[in-house]
Amino acid sequence: MNIPDTQPKNLHGRNSQLVDQEEKRRDLGFGTKLNDTYSRLINRDGSFNLVRRNGSFWDQLNLYNRLITMSWAKFLVLVLLFYCVSNGLFACLYLLVGAENLQSSAEQMFYGPFWKAFFFSSQTLTTVGYGHIAPVSFLASIVAAFESMLGLLSFALVTGLLYGRFSRPSAYIKFSRRAIFSPYLDVNGWMFRIINARSNQLIDVQVEVTMSRLETRADGSRHRRYYNLKLERSKVVFFPTNWTLVHPITNESPLHGCTPDDLAESDTEFLILLQAMDDTFSQVVHRRYSYRYDEVLWGQKFRPMFDGGQRGMVELDLEKLDDTEEAFLN
Amino acid sequence: MNIPDTQPKNLHGRNSQLVDQEEKRRDLGFGTKLNDTYSRLINRDGSFNLVRRNGSFWDQLNLYNRLITMSWAKFLVLVLLFYCVSNGLFACLYLLVGAENLQSSAEQMFYGPFWKAFFFSSQTLTTVGYGHIAPVSFLASIVAAFESMLGLLSFALVTGLLYGRFSRPSAYIKFSRRAIFSPYLDVNGWMFRIINARSNQLIDVQVEVTMSRLETRADGSRHRRYYNLKLERSKVVFFPTNWTLVHPITNESPLHGCTPDDLAESDTEFLILLQAMDDTFSQVVHRRYSYRYDEVLWGQKFRPMFDGGQRGMVELDLEKLDDTEEAFLN
Amino acid sequence: MNIPDTQPKNLHGRNSQLVDQEEKRRDLGFGTKLNDTYSRLINRDGSFNLVRRNGSFWDQLNLYNRLITMSWAKFLVLVLLFYCVSNGLFACLYLLVGAENLQSSAEQMFYGPFWKAFFFSSQTLTTVGYGHIAPVSFLASIVAAFESMLGLLSFALVTGLLYGRFSRPSAYIKFSRRAIFSPYLDVNGWMFRIINARSNQLIDVQVEVTMSRLETRADGSRHRRYYNLKLERSKVVFFPTNWTLVHPITNESPLHGCTPDDLAESDTEFLILLQAMDDTFSQVVHRRYSYRYDEVLWGQKFRPMFDGGQRGMVELDLEKLDDTEEAFLN
Amino acid sequence: MNIPDTQPKNLHGRNSQLVDQEEKRRDLGFGTKLNDTYSRLINRDGSFNLVRRNGSFWDQLNLYNRLITMSWAKFLVLVLLFYCVSNGLFACLYLLVGAENLQSSAEQMFYGPFWKAFFFSSQTLTTVGYGHIAPVSFLASIVAAFESMLGLLSFALVTGLLYGRFSRPSAYIKFSRRAIFSPYLDVNGWMFRIINARSNQLIDVQVEVTMSRLETRADGSRHRRYYNLKLERSKVVFFPTNWTLVHPITNESPLHGCTPDDLAESDTEFLILLQAMDDTFSQVVHRRYSYRYDEVLWGQKFRPMFDGGQRGMVELDLEKLDDTEEAFLN
Repeated sequence: MNIPDTQPKNLHGRNSQLVDQEEKRRDLGFGTKLNDTYSRLINRDGSFNLVRRNGSFWDQLNLYNRLITMSWAKFLVLVLLFYCVSNGLFACLYLLVGAENLQSSAEQMFYGPFWKAFFFSSQTLTTVGYGHIAPVSFLASIVAAFESMLGLLSFALVTGLLYGRFSRPSAYIKFSRRAIFSPYLDVNGWMFRIINARSNQLIDVQVEVTMSRLETRADGSRHRRYYNLKLERSKVVFFPTNWTLVHPITNESPLHGCTPDDLAESDTEFLILLQAMDDTFSQVVHRRYSYRYDEVLWGQKFRPMFDGGQRGMVELDLEKLDDTEEAFLN
Repeated sequence: MNIPDTQPKNLHGRNSQLVDQEEKRRDLGFGTKLNDTYSRLINRDGSFNLVRRNGSFWDQLNLYNRLITMSWAKFLVLVLLFYCVSNGLFACLYLLVGAENLQSSAEQMFYGPFWKAFFFSSQTLTTVGYGHIAPVSFLASIVAAFESMLGLLSFALVTGLLYGRFSRPSAYIKFSRRAIFSPYLDVNGWMFRIINARSNQLIDVQVEVTMSRLETRADGSRHRRYYNLKLERSKVVFFPTNWTLVHPITNESPLHGCTPDDLAESDTEFLILLQAMDDTFSQVVHRRYSYRYDEVLWGQKFRPMFDGGQRGMVELDLEKLDDTEEAFLN
Repeated sequence: MNIPDTQPKNLHGRNSQLVDQEEKRRDLGFGTKLNDTYSRLINRDGSFNLVRRNGSFWDQLNLYNRLITMSWAKFLVLVLLFYCVSNGLFACLYLLVGAENLQSSAEQMFYGPFWKAFFFSSQTLTTVGYGHIAPVSFLASIVAAFESMLGLLSFALVTGLLYGRFSRPSAYIKFSRRAIFSPYLDVNGWMFRIINARSNQLIDVQVEVTMSRLETRADGSRHRRYYNLKLERSKVVFFPTNWTLVHPITNESPLHGCTPDDLAESDTEFLILLQAMDDTFSQVVHRRYSYRYDEVLWGQKFRPMFDGGQRGMVELDLEKLDDTEEAFLN
Repeated sequence: MNIPDTQPKNLHGRNSQLVDQEEKRRDLGFGTKLNDTYSRLINRDGSFNLVRRNGSFWDQLNLYNRLITMSWAKFLVLVLLFYCVSNGLFACLYLLVGAENLQSSAEQMFYGPFWKAFFFSSQTLTTVGYGHIAPVSFLASIVAAFESMLGLLSFALVTGLLYGRFSRPSAYIKFSRRAIFSPYLDVNGWMFRIINARSNQLIDVQVEVTMSRLETRADGSRHRRYYNLKLERSKVVFFPTNWTLVHPITNESPLHGCTPDDLAESDTEFLILLQAMDDTFSQVVHRRYSYRYDEVLWGQKFRPMFDGGQRGMVELDLEKLDDTEEAFLN
């Protein structure tokens, strides 16, 4: 036990109003101390605006996560690179052991010992094993036996990674580039629009919007506060077409009476959380997005994205997602 | 910031009754504007009746989803095709490099250089690598090294796809071809019947039925509205036999007083959502189905699907799912 | 539309007390008509006591499910069988094409053409491809190319199946062979005991017990009814040791006043549903079990399964699960 | 049926206050009888402090679970070992059959028959199959055919295991090494701090803290009781930075008035359950942790872990997790 002598050794509990207040404060997990106005909380790709220092190497690397989430181009280049480098290293190993230990049944080998070893290595790593080059000494055989096992392991890994990449749940929700302040029924509304960019079905789509802004306390210090924005409709069962999410600006809205300058001055950011169920794999998927005060248009409305279609089918034009036109605010 | 000069810069919030009304409207996610009577909302296979335009190529293709959900016959043909085309392409590449670079240990090759290259390619792609044909020049070896890697990657992919296809959660629920209006206790009921076509167990099966119909507003415009149909029983823990779902037509039912002509005139569609837990993999599965007004029978009742059986076991005859007989409505 | 002329075309809704009653009836999904007393509802392995007739061949076969759930011994025998039969079939095919088309580099082949073809086939199917036997005619090469592809596909499948078998969520809950009527506090209780037979952790374990029995209506007909048995504790967060589940027989219990003969006469069956979260894969797992009236002991109590242990660790003896001793009922 | 004659055959139900009391007792699943003070309930790695005896061999082994959860180093050594032992065993088998049955195309084999058989085995198991060693007798061919199949199965297994290891949901939450009693607002609080050690995002993080301690009943017997500790905030939507969890010690807290000696005397242990959603795979992950009375510091407070950063990004220093400084308790 570790008790400084200067401390009382008895915990005096009291009823505390400060505790009650603190328990009621809304906090998404960012805390109140992120109060500079130069950076946003959530980047447009859904990641957080934060640098991590001094993590352990493996935790920082987070290999599997990175291999699963990187782009396909990057992934395939990496696989190819891994293949070439492995073959190069093993070729050197075979040369070290002695290239003459790789017996070749054919005499017309018109490339040097390195490439012979390199190609033998590639035939071993992929387990293709033509056999027109074959290991004949003890050491070369040992290396080849180890390499073929390593090859199988590597490609077992790649199989797993490919499956992981493909089967990763992912909602390809596209958000309109701008949120808008638009007339809505007999009031105004803050709106944005989303579509499902993929053809797989999403069901039970839920959206939650939190507004974050800096507020000045009585003592002049600035703290970040969070408000839930009530949506006209925050959940749909199906999501086959586009969906315009609307926060009606009534008396209760924290946006009530705001001007564009207010939003800028208080570094307002609209944080969006979307949750849906991917129908193909019955997987729950999440998306984060954020609109900053300078990504909001005033006095615009969205143009419709679909029309009746000719063949008795409704046609949804995905390119019209960002189309807005001027509209007078109420 | 982007503010048209003609706009007021201050958001006036008001209490609005229209907002309150709008918030209470039931909407599955189709909106109110799908008001033509020529097409149904949900097709019988559960997909939505909608054409998408201008999506990006890859999003439209949605490769993985398509490969996972296509029929087995189609999938296997595709794999075979991919194999043949790949071998053909690589055979051409080997010919380009020079067929003489593929040394063949045997002299009795009684097929032309293309087929020699083709078979060598197939032996490389599958990594079978007999070695009675083998690459001897630098270029041919490079191509072969690349091809064998590609082969492994391809079959890694196919492994993942096969597993994905097999392990995909899927409830093989069969719905009776017709819904019926049938006498039910001392009133009438709208009913349909379902069975689990597979032998794997489904538990915690939940069904929700929404009726969609066009209604004429005071101003003569037609809008689609949605009603939840209350079921006599909407959830069961086990689903070993058949299950007849019943919406009793009491005073509160939106079907109260409807005639067949009413249903047709208002383009009525019954949308069914089913959710269950597949016991083998503990996966939640979803099914959508819909009955249109012309798929409903009046004054019929379902014949029982199971009888006592001889060997002390209850026997369920899956072929009797659609069996109905005439019954007088109350 | 399909309306018999003899039917009224207008749905008269009424308020119905029968509908209200029916909605309140508890039903697990078996219905009320399973009223013979010769068979139980749920078998001891959790399957349902039901025969299915006339399902489609593939739905009945339910291949993947069966391959995933069969025993390991059966599965491995099946794989071996598949391997041998495939090789045999392809061997015949090679013989048909002509065994002389399989060139063999070695002269010391002291087995007949069938076995030569068989071994060549095995070397092709597994893609080992030594090459000391190799296809030299066009037809033999085509067959070999196809076989090697098939080989890869098959083993891709087996890979998927092996992974599916291993990763299948499964709670190895062991139930005591008998449920007991035992004194409990100042009343009696109906009890059974469970343990986690595996070393992986289960958390959030929930148990629900339903009693099913035949009851005679006023008109003499017998119908099956279901009662929820209230448990003293139906959920625990951790499940590291054994857990005795207790239904206290208070005034409200449907077992109040029952005698052994009552249970037998009414074909009473206790249906148990267990749900838990497997900690390793965060998968929800389900188990069903049932005790029939003749699997219940009267006036016994469970002996404790664990003792203090010597090394400061609690020791749980899994073999004591079924240990009971006599106890006088209150 | 199994009824001792000495037992009453009729279950007399009564209303029982003891039953009511028992139903209200909080129990995590450990029971009340774990009352020695020498061992903790939950080890620091989240496992339970319990020995299991007499389980069946396979249940105890729990192979898949063990292979999935062991360290990477251990796993790879095991794979390598399996590979070597398999090759060794098959080499012996080939020697038994006769090493002369393994024909070798090359004459320069300067290693003995065992190694020839060993390398042939490795080339068969990995399906590399160079063919410069090849089976020529019937028996050797049979063994090789079987070995190549076994090889594919083994590596199918390894593929599955590798994928299982990688895709296993795991929250790399780091807990501060000590919990602290610290001033909190105008009272004191019991606190600990956590960070996400990995770079993948966790969302919807929930924490529950239960205090377990021995209490002496009126009759002098000691029983373990469990108390839920109310947290100032028990759930956050995002978890990008550090999170200090606070139990405010108000009048209602079971820690109210406790001294360090009290905690030691009653063998107090703080059990922590954490649940979160891993964003990459949308998997729910669980973590358990526990602080014992001697892992709690009195009169300390946590130093902040992040500062403004220079480049407009918040910097989180993961090494500061355990940093505390002295603070006077209220």
